[in-house]
Amino acid sequence: MKSKIKFVENMQFVGTADSGHAVVMDAPPSAGGNNIGSKPSELLLMAFGGCSGMDVISILRKKKQDVTNFEINVNGETPESHPRSFTDIHIEYIVTGRNVSEEAVKRAIELSLGNYCMVGNTIGKAAKITHSYKIVQE
Amino acid sequence: MKSKIKFVENMQFVGTADSGHAVVMDAPPSAGGNNIGSKPSELLLMAFGGCSGMDVISILRKKKQDVTNFEINVNGETPESHPRSFTDIHIEYIVTGRNVSEEAVKRAIELSLGNYCMVGNTIGKAAKITHSYKIVQE
Repeated sequence: MKSKIKFVENMQFVGTADSGHAVVMDAPPSAGGNNIGSKPSELLLMAFGGCSGMDVISILRKKKQDVTNFEINVNGETPESHPRSFTDIHIEYIVTGRNVSEEAVKRAIELSLGNYCMVGNTIGKAAKITHSYKIVQE
Repeated sequence: MKSKIKFVENMQFVGTADSGHAVVMDAPPSAGGNNIGSKPSELLLMAFGGCSGMDVISILRKKKQDVTNFEINVNGETPESHPRSFTDIHIEYIVTGRNVSEEAVKRAIELSLGNYCMVGNTIGKAAKITHSYKIVQE
């Protein structure tokens, strides 16, 4: 898998990869940037949420679950001491739907975090990943 | 650091985080998506390139280097066997400029990968990171 990241100006970069989509990255003014793009460390958390979210929604679909809304919150903790890295990452799944089976949700999360999600499998070797879920029945 | 990832349709998700910028994520048709956004695993590689790129450009700027163009290639290897994760990631820095000091470039990369880059520090615990650089004098 290949990606290219091109410098634009100040702290702004544009990333592209095989799928052909561009992502603008920038730093906040406190780090010399103009905050006109995502911070790279935020992208890491979003990538994890998107990756696991895709697993979970496709498994719930296969299990014929009637999901009407689905949100994921990913929060990462980093100690202030250098070299900084994510040490703890919590992912929360909020599934809204009609007669959604808790067993199906639990199993979908388990399959994603335990096997399918490549981003989670990678960062799970570096940080402690915890998870929780909420089911909102409509 | 907080991020929120919201399901849109099919395999499409939109991620946002503290800095307020949205990123569209999707899967290729082979995985049930429509390829109208970055793959999460691509975002991971781009996040690494952007993170380290910001370090390197700001260090080169402090060292008064006249950089006219700067590109980074990040390639990730993943075995086909499950659970899949990135095992090897190579980052290549291509610095173009006038009288750019090789020592300055080497030192900037060393500081980024050895200490400053939070994304690199995180995924470096999971995958073997190698690097190379090219300097193009104008």
